[in-house]
Amino acid sequence: MSYVVALDVGGTSMKGGLVSESGEVTGFPGRPTGREDGPEAVVANIRAYVAELAASGDGPPRGVGLAVPGIVDADTALFSANIGWRDVPAGAFVPEGLPVSLGHDVQTAGLAESVFGAGRDVTDFLFLPIGTGIAGALIIKGEPYGGVNGWGGEIGHTPVWPDGERCACGQTGCLETYASAASLGRRYTERTGKPATAVDVMANAATDPHAYAVLAEAVEALAISLASYTLLMDPAMIVIGGGLGEAGEALLMPLRDRMTERLSFRKPPPLRQTALGVRAGMLGAGILGWRAAGVRNWAPQLDL
Amino acid sequence: MSYVVALDVGGTSMKGGLVSESGEVTGFPGRPTGREDGPEAVVANIRAYVAELAASGDGPPRGVGLAVPGIVDADTALFSANIGWRDVPAGAFVPEGLPVSLGHDVQTAGLAESVFGAGRDVTDFLFLPIGTGIAGALIIKGEPYGGVNGWGGEIGHTPVWPDGERCACGQTGCLETYASAASLGRRYTERTGKPATAVDVMANAATDPHAYAVLAEAVEALAISLASYTLLMDPAMIVIGGGLGEAGEALLMPLRDRMTERLSFRKPPPLRQTALGVRAGMLGAGILGWRAAGVRNWAPQLDL
Repeated sequence: MSYVVALDVGGTSMKGGLVSESGEVTGFPGRPTGREDGPEAVVANIRAYVAELAASGDGPPRGVGLAVPGIVDADTALFSANIGWRDVPAGAFVPEGLPVSLGHDVQTAGLAESVFGAGRDVTDFLFLPIGTGIAGALIIKGEPYGGVNGWGGEIGHTPVWPDGERCACGQTGCLETYASAASLGRRYTERTGKPATAVDVMANAATDPHAYAVLAEAVEALAISLASYTLLMDPAMIVIGGGLGEAGEALLMPLRDRMTERLSFRKPPPLRQTALGVRAGMLGAGILGWRAAGVRNWAPQLDL
Repeated sequence: MSYVVALDVGGTSMKGGLVSESGEVTGFPGRPTGREDGPEAVVANIRAYVAELAASGDGPPRGVGLAVPGIVDADTALFSANIGWRDVPAGAFVPEGLPVSLGHDVQTAGLAESVFGAGRDVTDFLFLPIGTGIAGALIIKGEPYGGVNGWGGEIGHTPVWPDGERCACGQTGCLETYASAASLGRRYTERTGKPATAVDVMANAATDPHAYAVLAEAVEALAISLASYTLLMDPAMIVIGGGLGEAGEALLMPLRDRMTERLSFRKPPPLRQTALGVRAGMLGAGILGWRAAGVRNWAPQLDL
């Protein structure tokens, strides 16, 4: 059966699988990237993983799709602060002769939401996964847009309260320092001295005033940032994903209210929860793999 | 000689001219739009103006290009709060049989900066005219991008200090309420009781502490907003125009400093002054006119 190898490479671990032409995903156990051994080791680990996945398939794969962090174009992993590589040609990640295409991790997940997910009926939207950090994929005319050098989408480090808290990045008042899942836990602990995760904060917001205050400030920070995005980009939709996105309407309802309040002469666009969740990365890498195989508009009907 | 009619329609006045294939602009006296007589009168006034301009040319024009305010696509003026029209087909603005193309006023000026002006060597940049108000043209892959419904580019109403001053638009802390030319004068007067224009404030900033404070706050507001734009869009350049843009390096130097200060993990893109100034609107309308005539990539060498 015709298939491609799909790989979603994170900072510390990667997960891979096979994606058939009809869209069936066969996932394989993930493994560490091994970045503590340096960028060359990571490249070798990815190549070995791709080779194993390819060997498990029915004949050679038609192509390979890789979602990687940092700055990337289809043919080169240009830079990742996290992994430490620079200018790695796509061919280095795969056994010789396999067609391969690279994509940025968040943008690749956004591409999957565009083709299969919450954004499948629109062409222009923001995909915003809220996890340990916050970065967005700007989907413009159906494709991720990373700006002129691929540094775009850093909405997590746009200032929402520009004279506010210092962010870990060195800037002041970044969205991420108020609204990431990691920040929810950290800010609760700063107020109370008690350890907490974002899930705790969400769960206790109705009864614990400290949890409520931390969540309300995160929602306000998101509303400010997404109101700005709306005014600037006029998107058809905003799709919220990541760990915090799992909260669904518990997050989206107050966020919708606060965005409406922040906007005077226009309405906010629809806010939706991701339709693909954690599968977005692998399906997006599958799209890249099929593109590498020459199938430009791969978009089978999926059961979601 | 082969030419098109170009018209730049503002809220209160419009100016028109003829644009030859080699890029010579023959300007004609401007005239009021006549919006106090209602949107139908404005359409009739534009049509009469186009007819006069066409009659002054050497034979009929090859096409007509119109830059208009509000929400617009190439074939329809969809909406303008300022003028009051809705869904006016492009053909209504011209004598029967003339090919015509419409564009958004700021986006059309940005298109001219992209083809002929400060952005001619790059494909992705922000054109930001700072005048009575502030609105931007997002140039993406060489073309203006107005979002899914054409409401994009409203950077003047993105919040910079979200708990700050009330803006005339009803929102709180908008860039425009701190940094437009009108706001510079208004804010100086609020501090001192003395009337002032933006030009006064710029001119006196070195000696008058109130003028300095008002200007410094405007520069900080612009830096916050343009830092956000940079992080989100990764533009190749930011081009500042409009009345305040005339200040050139007196504005751009401190703005560059404050943007650098606001950004930690990346540099700001180059900040440039508009190369076309007030000619951008007419040249942009000329581009639209030549597109209407079927000349898609009209870009003669201009003496700037």
